[in-house]
Amino acid sequence: MTGGLGFIGSNLALALARAGASVTVVDACYPRHGANPANLDGPDGAGIRRVTADCADPAARTALEGAEVVFNLAGQVSHIDSMTDPAFDLDVNTRSQVALLEALRWVAPEAMVVFTSTRQLFGRPQYLPVDEEHPVRPVDVNGITKHAAEQFHRLYHEVHGLRTTVVRLTNVFGPRQRLRDDFQGFLPIFIRRALLGQPISLFGDGAQERDCLYVDDVVDCLVRAASTEEAVGEIFNVGNDEHLSLRVIADLIVGAAGSGSVEMVPWPPDRDAIDIGSYFGDSSKAKRMLGWTPRTTFAEGIERTVAFYRAHLDRYL
Amino acid sequence: MTGGLGFIGSNLALALARAGASVTVVDACYPRHGANPANLDGPDGAGIRRVTADCADPAARTALEGAEVVFNLAGQVSHIDSMTDPAFDLDVNTRSQVALLEALRWVAPEAMVVFTSTRQLFGRPQYLPVDEEHPVRPVDVNGITKHAAEQFHRLYHEVHGLRTTVVRLTNVFGPRQRLRDDFQGFLPIFIRRALLGQPISLFGDGAQERDCLYVDDVVDCLVRAASTEEAVGEIFNVGNDEHLSLRVIADLIVGAAGSGSVEMVPWPPDRDAIDIGSYFGDSSKAKRMLGWTPRTTFAEGIERTVAFYRAHLDRYL
Repeated sequence: MTGGLGFIGSNLALALARAGASVTVVDACYPRHGANPANLDGPDGAGIRRVTADCADPAARTALEGAEVVFNLAGQVSHIDSMTDPAFDLDVNTRSQVALLEALRWVAPEAMVVFTSTRQLFGRPQYLPVDEEHPVRPVDVNGITKHAAEQFHRLYHEVHGLRTTVVRLTNVFGPRQRLRDDFQGFLPIFIRRALLGQPISLFGDGAQERDCLYVDDVVDCLVRAASTEEAVGEIFNVGNDEHLSLRVIADLIVGAAGSGSVEMVPWPPDRDAIDIGSYFGDSSKAKRMLGWTPRTTFAEGIERTVAFYRAHLDRYL
Repeated sequence: MTGGLGFIGSNLALALARAGASVTVVDACYPRHGANPANLDGPDGAGIRRVTADCADPAARTALEGAEVVFNLAGQVSHIDSMTDPAFDLDVNTRSQVALLEALRWVAPEAMVVFTSTRQLFGRPQYLPVDEEHPVRPVDVNGITKHAAEQFHRLYHEVHGLRTTVVRLTNVFGPRQRLRDDFQGFLPIFIRRALLGQPISLFGDGAQERDCLYVDDVVDCLVRAASTEEAVGEIFNVGNDEHLSLRVIADLIVGAAGSGSVEMVPWPPDRDAIDIGSYFGDSSKAKRMLGWTPRTTFAEGIERTVAFYRAHLDRYL
């Protein structure tokens, strides 16, 4: 697994280890990315092998040798950072991915490869819910580099026979997400501020809707994708049928935390440029082909998330 | 201008110089790419300033300082090479382009920027003729990296206000194209073989259709794009309404050359993987918005092309 010390990667690695799988995580541990060694602490993580390497490094190639399944989760995920340092975003999200795919041709040509992408590449939706046929029109560098990486996964399947699947995730939340700064999406910002008793700032009227996914539902989806032969060569939009306004999301977070507050502020110009209005995805293809369905409501997920951070907040700030 | 020692770049640079413009060409002169110092030989090229640099180099940044128009033509154009060395293709076609756009924000923020892309990013057409709304689904690395570069041009317009335009070219032919090897598309291969009295090999039955453009028509289109304010932020498919089968194209080339022959052979496997069947583009948007129309038939263009190479063949082999 790449990106295995990050938010989704560590939850997935722990779930796989609990199920008895032999798990190796490869993570570059770049500063400001989601990697956190504490994410694999505890008895479930004890047997997980850890390799510190970028996907493009020879050590990653060696670690992936003979893998049956490759969960390819490594990446720069900050939309804001991608605009201030586009070259680094391109390096990590596209160039390293090409190196990884080239390596897989030789060291694990039979592996199922599940690549996590982002709904961000659609930009401002032309219609809702957004299905897989929706035009791709990124409004930030991150959307361009992730889309290019998706295309490389598809191409390496079509031309070189790799067994790749692409899963485009919506806003994911849950335990083990980096809360430290404001660069990883709105959910960790909201959660941190509520836990610290600070106000959550909503831009505009907070009426824009989002579909959020609890990380356990994402883990379930990724495992299903890795074990579904018909998923090879396919792309899935993976979101939630529960659509909530940012205002409602913020209120639920403040309610679960029992601290913090919600305030409305005007749009700052640097965010206005890359905002996309309301977004929610159409996950019917994933439900149909993977037999997957999200099982956690936002209210349930945020209760569990708050409980986790109440016990471990020092590790995530 | 970037890529100014290449095929299209040099024809454009010479036309601009003849029209009295002050022209600087920036070209990395990578081996196997189209750069040829002989392309700017002669009185028309005498006043053209030449800088040997990749788009990402500081020398390119300096050369572009204060430019009013940037024709951005630099790139790796070989589909075959992009599959054998994807990392280099990504470096040259996307990474260097991001560096160039970043530089332009500071050294030429008001310049009109005309970027040449390729119809190759559409992959196998889902319908014909292919217009700008046709889904993008590259069948080779080159199509992915050029599409990412297109998206960066659009994004830098939308977010940073650069005045960028994207022109997707079909198969271009004419004087000053590299004929030396088999990596630059089918037209230079056909032309070289005919001029050398060798057989032109057609894969399959040669019935796949293409629209070809004589380079002078491309130069006209690029100049119009650079001087059309409404073209900013737009993408144009630029092809030809004259659709010819590969068989007819080969026969016309052999006829013009007065040498060579045509033979049919089965598909080699490495090309089969990236072939796209028939392709021709819908150029009506370019015609409408740029007031452009191609004026040279294939038969006329190939006569002029053969005449040029008869006089200068030693420089292009």
